[in-house]
Amino acid sequence: MSSSSTSENQNPPQLRKDPIWNRWVIFSPARSKRPSDFKSKSSSSNPNPTTNCPFCIGNEHQCAPEIFRVPSDDPNWKIRVIQNLFPALSRELDDPVDGASGSVLDGFGFHDVVIETPVHSVQLCDLEREEIGEVFVAYTRRIQQLVNRHSIKYVQVFKNHGAAAGASMSHSHSQMIALPVIPPSVSARLGSMKDFFDQTGKCCICEIQRENLLIDSSTYFFSLVPYAASFPFEIWIVPRYHSAHFHELDAEKAIDLGGLLKQMLNKISLQLNDPPFNFMIHTSPLHGNESELAYTHWFIQIVPQLVGTAGFELATGCYINPVFPEDAAKVLREVNVSESG
Amino acid sequence: MSSSSTSENQNPPQLRKDPIWNRWVIFSPARSKRPSDFKSKSSSSNPNPTTNCPFCIGNEHQCAPEIFRVPSDDPNWKIRVIQNLFPALSRELDDPVDGASGSVLDGFGFHDVVIETPVHSVQLCDLEREEIGEVFVAYTRRIQQLVNRHSIKYVQVFKNHGAAAGASMSHSHSQMIALPVIPPSVSARLGSMKDFFDQTGKCCICEIQRENLLIDSSTYFFSLVPYAASFPFEIWIVPRYHSAHFHELDAEKAIDLGGLLKQMLNKISLQLNDPPFNFMIHTSPLHGNESELAYTHWFIQIVPQLVGTAGFELATGCYINPVFPEDAAKVLREVNVSESG
Repeated sequence: MSSSSTSENQNPPQLRKDPIWNRWVIFSPARSKRPSDFKSKSSSSNPNPTTNCPFCIGNEHQCAPEIFRVPSDDPNWKIRVIQNLFPALSRELDDPVDGASGSVLDGFGFHDVVIETPVHSVQLCDLEREEIGEVFVAYTRRIQQLVNRHSIKYVQVFKNHGAAAGASMSHSHSQMIALPVIPPSVSARLGSMKDFFDQTGKCCICEIQRENLLIDSSTYFFSLVPYAASFPFEIWIVPRYHSAHFHELDAEKAIDLGGLLKQMLNKISLQLNDPPFNFMIHTSPLHGNESELAYTHWFIQIVPQLVGTAGFELATGCYINPVFPEDAAKVLREVNVSESG
Repeated sequence: MSSSSTSENQNPPQLRKDPIWNRWVIFSPARSKRPSDFKSKSSSSNPNPTTNCPFCIGNEHQCAPEIFRVPSDDPNWKIRVIQNLFPALSRELDDPVDGASGSVLDGFGFHDVVIETPVHSVQLCDLEREEIGEVFVAYTRRIQQLVNRHSIKYVQVFKNHGAAAGASMSHSHSQMIALPVIPPSVSARLGSMKDFFDQTGKCCICEIQRENLLIDSSTYFFSLVPYAASFPFEIWIVPRYHSAHFHELDAEKAIDLGGLLKQMLNKISLQLNDPPFNFMIHTSPLHGNESELAYTHWFIQIVPQLVGTAGFELATGCYINPVFPEDAAKVLREVNVSESG
């Protein structure tokens, strides 16, 4: 509050409507420093590696039951998919009666953990692109198992990195929650993408604005800051090819995706001081109708946790982003990370 | 992760659909301690009161321009409504052309701060009910000024208390953002309330479920934990009488509301270890059509910040609440705070 001079040379605020979720975002650069000065206040690295982490190799007995490991039956595993010891939903309840038309439903579902590495000190971005690819393949394999449960409508894959981003364990892991309902933001996204398709005959992700927003690309994917990003330095990784379901990703594309994700995580780590972050895979419902396949298109959203959400965002669902997407994209394009990380 | 025994005596998880925003919430008590053991990790009190706070009486010259004070023209003011020095939206831009049908709009709007007391060490819940009533009257007076700007569609009143709830200043204050668009969550709420009205002929807030959920009531208001609360110990304060617009609140009702808010804030402070919190006033758009008045009903939502939101909530819009609303309501009913606080 010491001076108002920071706002004098800034662009005025602007509202942009995100076409994917059909929601307004406020861009307000006057509330912030220069985009290139943006840093996380505290590094998300764990300064005190524990010697008694249940996710570490050798401590498997401390965990909830395993679903599968990679490689299979190998005590020298690279990836383990296990049940969450404190699941948000219960796999032990009966499958709910189809429909969910009322206002209450038993909390049936699956909540799994993907341990991405056997080694406590290794983070996802430290892995080779082929190894990150194997993590993606593990996600797809678990989703393919869940497709057979007709009462599961949607599987959310997400990663919380750093305590400030919601991670309760510092050992590198991601989570999968399989839900008996279509969650609210997914319904909003499907509705908005359908409207775009009805009006234009095209998929709105295939048509996404890239000009001034592109960060990088690989054989099968590109990365960009979306035109109406809700958060500063938010990044999307988008398949170049039209595809409704993440879980149809094959091994070759998974490795290509692993390389681009590694590069994006290294860029935000270097530029933003190893910030806490979330990434989320936005895909289509498991048992959607045929027409949904034409207008839905999966992608990954990476959100560095740099600004808190507070009463205004809670109340309105409208985010205030202090960094214009084209400025964030320019900064991220220029961060120099080597191919090998 | 040390033991799975905590989950054995718990109710199984359940999904409940909130009828106001039409969204599913997951109730998952196995992930938590007993409801009565819930505490904020860190008190939100400011341990280091500053001697150079621009919101303190005598430091008015350090602030952005004043809009009005209470009492008027009194150097010994009790409340000041001022411009935010770092506004999210700019009052200096031209009013946007009506419609907002495109995907971009100039960031025209108003972002004001309501300084609730001249004294740094005094928190909102320390004020007398009559003084909190005057804060509510100040909100209504400012909204009544903004009603005259036809391009302002909605005014969000909110309070962030404690750094973890988004407050950048520790001196007790609240904020008002006047927007040139209807924000996403407000559109969702209006749509859902209209659906209920079309199906039943009734206002869904007038019909809100109170059984086992009521905390307390006053002459004109009642407080409860909503049936599908998104957050543990979330509280709503609801007018007993049907009213679409908060800003039609009169002085008598404002004092009554001040008493009930004071009591609820004291209850969460005592029970939950002075947690950071947000409160938000959910009202109706300024220039809605006549039919909206029948199915919209304003209320206040109070959210203690006890659990973080992470990748799952960001991706799905679906919250995981570890405390069943009837358990939270029972705990809050039994917290004994004196009438005078």
